[in-house]
Amino acid sequence: MSETYRYESIVRTLRGLIERGVLRPGDRMPSLRDTREKSGASIGTIMHAYARLEDSGVIEARPRSGYYVRSRPLRRAAEPVTSSPPTVSTDVDVANLVFDVLEAIKHPEIVPLGSAFPSPEHFPTEKLNKAAAEAARRLPVWSSVRDLPPGNAELRRLIALRYAEAGVDVAPDDIVMTCGAMEAINLSLNAVAKPGDIIAIESPTFYSTLLSIERMGMKVVEIATSPRDGIDLGSLRNALNALDVAACVVMPNFQNPLGALMPDEKKRELVAMLARTNTPLIEDDVYAELYFGKAKPKPAKSFDRAGLVLHCGSFAKSLAPGSRIGWVAPGRFKPEVERLKFISTISTPSLPQAALAEYLKHGGYERHLRGFRQRLRGALAAMTEAVATHFPAGCRLTQPQGGYMLWVEMPESIDALRLHQLALAEGISIAPGPLFSVKRKYGNFVRLNYGHFNVKSTVNAVRTVGHLAGDLLR
Amino acid sequence: MSETYRYESIVRTLRGLIERGVLRPGDRMPSLRDTREKSGASIGTIMHAYARLEDSGVIEARPRSGYYVRSRPLRRAAEPVTSSPPTVSTDVDVANLVFDVLEAIKHPEIVPLGSAFPSPEHFPTEKLNKAAAEAARRLPVWSSVRDLPPGNAELRRLIALRYAEAGVDVAPDDIVMTCGAMEAINLSLNAVAKPGDIIAIESPTFYSTLLSIERMGMKVVEIATSPRDGIDLGSLRNALNALDVAACVVMPNFQNPLGALMPDEKKRELVAMLARTNTPLIEDDVYAELYFGKAKPKPAKSFDRAGLVLHCGSFAKSLAPGSRIGWVAPGRFKPEVERLKFISTISTPSLPQAALAEYLKHGGYERHLRGFRQRLRGALAAMTEAVATHFPAGCRLTQPQGGYMLWVEMPESIDALRLHQLALAEGISIAPGPLFSVKRKYGNFVRLNYGHFNVKSTVNAVRTVGHLAGDLLR
Repeated sequence: MSETYRYESIVRTLRGLIERGVLRPGDRMPSLRDTREKSGASIGTIMHAYARLEDSGVIEARPRSGYYVRSRPLRRAAEPVTSSPPTVSTDVDVANLVFDVLEAIKHPEIVPLGSAFPSPEHFPTEKLNKAAAEAARRLPVWSSVRDLPPGNAELRRLIALRYAEAGVDVAPDDIVMTCGAMEAINLSLNAVAKPGDIIAIESPTFYSTLLSIERMGMKVVEIATSPRDGIDLGSLRNALNALDVAACVVMPNFQNPLGALMPDEKKRELVAMLARTNTPLIEDDVYAELYFGKAKPKPAKSFDRAGLVLHCGSFAKSLAPGSRIGWVAPGRFKPEVERLKFISTISTPSLPQAALAEYLKHGGYERHLRGFRQRLRGALAAMTEAVATHFPAGCRLTQPQGGYMLWVEMPESIDALRLHQLALAEGISIAPGPLFSVKRKYGNFVRLNYGHFNVKSTVNAVRTVGHLAGDLLR
Repeated sequence: MSETYRYESIVRTLRGLIERGVLRPGDRMPSLRDTREKSGASIGTIMHAYARLEDSGVIEARPRSGYYVRSRPLRRAAEPVTSSPPTVSTDVDVANLVFDVLEAIKHPEIVPLGSAFPSPEHFPTEKLNKAAAEAARRLPVWSSVRDLPPGNAELRRLIALRYAEAGVDVAPDDIVMTCGAMEAINLSLNAVAKPGDIIAIESPTFYSTLLSIERMGMKVVEIATSPRDGIDLGSLRNALNALDVAACVVMPNFQNPLGALMPDEKKRELVAMLARTNTPLIEDDVYAELYFGKAKPKPAKSFDRAGLVLHCGSFAKSLAPGSRIGWVAPGRFKPEVERLKFISTISTPSLPQAALAEYLKHGGYERHLRGFRQRLRGALAAMTEAVATHFPAGCRLTQPQGGYMLWVEMPESIDALRLHQLALAEGISIAPGPLFSVKRKYGNFVRLNYGHFNVKSTVNAVRTVGHLAGDLLR
């Protein structure tokens, strides 16, 4: 048994004891020596495991006395309620606001609670670089021609394999490689809708999608969306009946910013409903690998029989942001998407595709994902407690089951844009709620990123932001 | 003195003797032994040099007798005349035609006279791969964040250095890295014009630009363009007076498909004229490194004082097509272009940027370019002669001073689209003229790519196409 495996097993066992209440707040943790005897791991491995639990805020060290379960029990705040936007179409005009905020938080010294990316320190840089170097040495002369759309054949085969493992029937030839999910969504929108068309979107939704829609001169109708199980199908049905909806953009798995996860049955219903009106579904599914449950959630695409689902994936959030490699499985729209890809960027770069194919074959992607998910779970627990402790009373927060985003509803008198400016002055970024709506709603919401490596600095930053929010209470 | 240098020097000397008429058609070439004594090169190097001249169609081997200057003198056909499109704005609807043709020529077994790329065999794959492996090993953890728009700082510095060497004042911070020139031109169009706006373009022009404009729902006005010195300034002035032109897209250096090169003075005048009406100039300058003259031609950007020129460059045509790395120096439109880049693909992939920076520093780019240009010059001579010999009487062809495209005007009764189909049946692609105009003009023109490695197979293919064209003569 490897030390890495032992380490993970110890963290899991101890965490389980606490979560199931076997060890309660204030209880002394098993000593390092006891744990060594039980696990057979080295004392270094065990100390490492305890340090991880301490970083996550689950246990605390007391001088000359050992480790204890944190005495303050995990506070649970209420969840925000489901949004209820009106069923009307709206022009999109968020770019200036979004870019003002993004520009402000770009500085590397800022604690990036407002970032849309997890910390690059989570990723297996060394192994990725090794795979890239290996791939680079062998990159064939003709790859530039052969990797023209739809893209690197070996990488598409490996992605199709992952689809198959998740029970989704997508062949290598059904996939078009793209420069990240952003291009995948742009191409999908372009393939199924034209300027002036109405796109149904979740409310709140990720601002990148709003930026795409705005740039293309399309309109949106915002659909009520639950922080727990995603887009409200009744509201969507109303919109489909009331308006001429050209397409629907949905993130069924760990919706950004809500973290909502649609149950399989609801996904099936969504796909069936859209099939009845022949409405394409653009499925933004970039967080699926970052699940906290037992198994990877299925995409809505797995229920697609009509070829109406354009499933957009990416390695940018789970493995290698800098590679900018994403893809779309566009169903019946593949010929159009492939053409649009040519007009957008001709083809996807050869080298990062070959590097990812090499890593997927030999780099240990599954092991990386296991560790990454575990770290995110710990970070979520720590941030949830920090928000519940330090934000003003009456805040509500989501209980995401995957991803790395927490969505916080503050009392109505707190202006998130003002809070963003105050936090920035303290060297901390947050993503204020109005970025996530075409109507600048969610004025008292913030999205916080817990995908950082250093959980302690995150918790400190949350405390600072919480106090600033308290100051804004009227 | 290296053998590579000796080899190039021998080819240059012998070619010079023939071009200046010192050796005339039918003359016996200096023997290998004589040349060895004069040059000090090895006999292998000398044989290699003679083989190159034979490949280029300049000399021929006669059994047991040595090498002779080709007895048939190089035939020169007349140049096509300058186009004269009407000054009216037109919707763009070329995508279906273009993609039908591109789809047909995609097969790797086809002799790609219709391709827009030179053969990958021209590129220093081994050295590029080595640089990429080197860069991959050292890719920093944080590169994915640091390389967000505007892109890799070291690569931008190296590109700025190349601008400086060409006498153009562009700082690293004036550059936005893109996924190839295609994205650079898309971003540029998006930054300066909106759907319904009129874009002034050369006639004929590269179909990729037409595809971009069509996708964005813009209109065009086609401007008369000379096969020798580029866009006609009088016609452009008329268009600027008659219509509300939002922007102008021009390829001043080795225009695709004409190969035209605008003299510096004309570039200066173009920039000044557009400055008077405050009209942005999108300069597509991806062939500048492939010049046959003494020095790299200047971009129009070098005469830009108002920040109105968006200069688009790329490594895809001169070094590394598969890397898909291009850039734009957008002048005063930089903030808008940087935002649009984020919406288009978030950022340009880290690894290919780092790999190119590494290659530019240590890979021998200048030496590669010298050899590449020399091979293209030889291939142009061979193809020019083959067209003049095998195409029907009355054909006119351009005399490009750089790049790898020949533009051939055939007698009016020959339908280039029909010729494209017949050639395809023989396993040869060509780019029929109607791809290069919104009005499907140039029905009797073809663009031929001489950027192949195997000049002999190209010459054979030209002979076949020429005979097919003859058959179509009525």
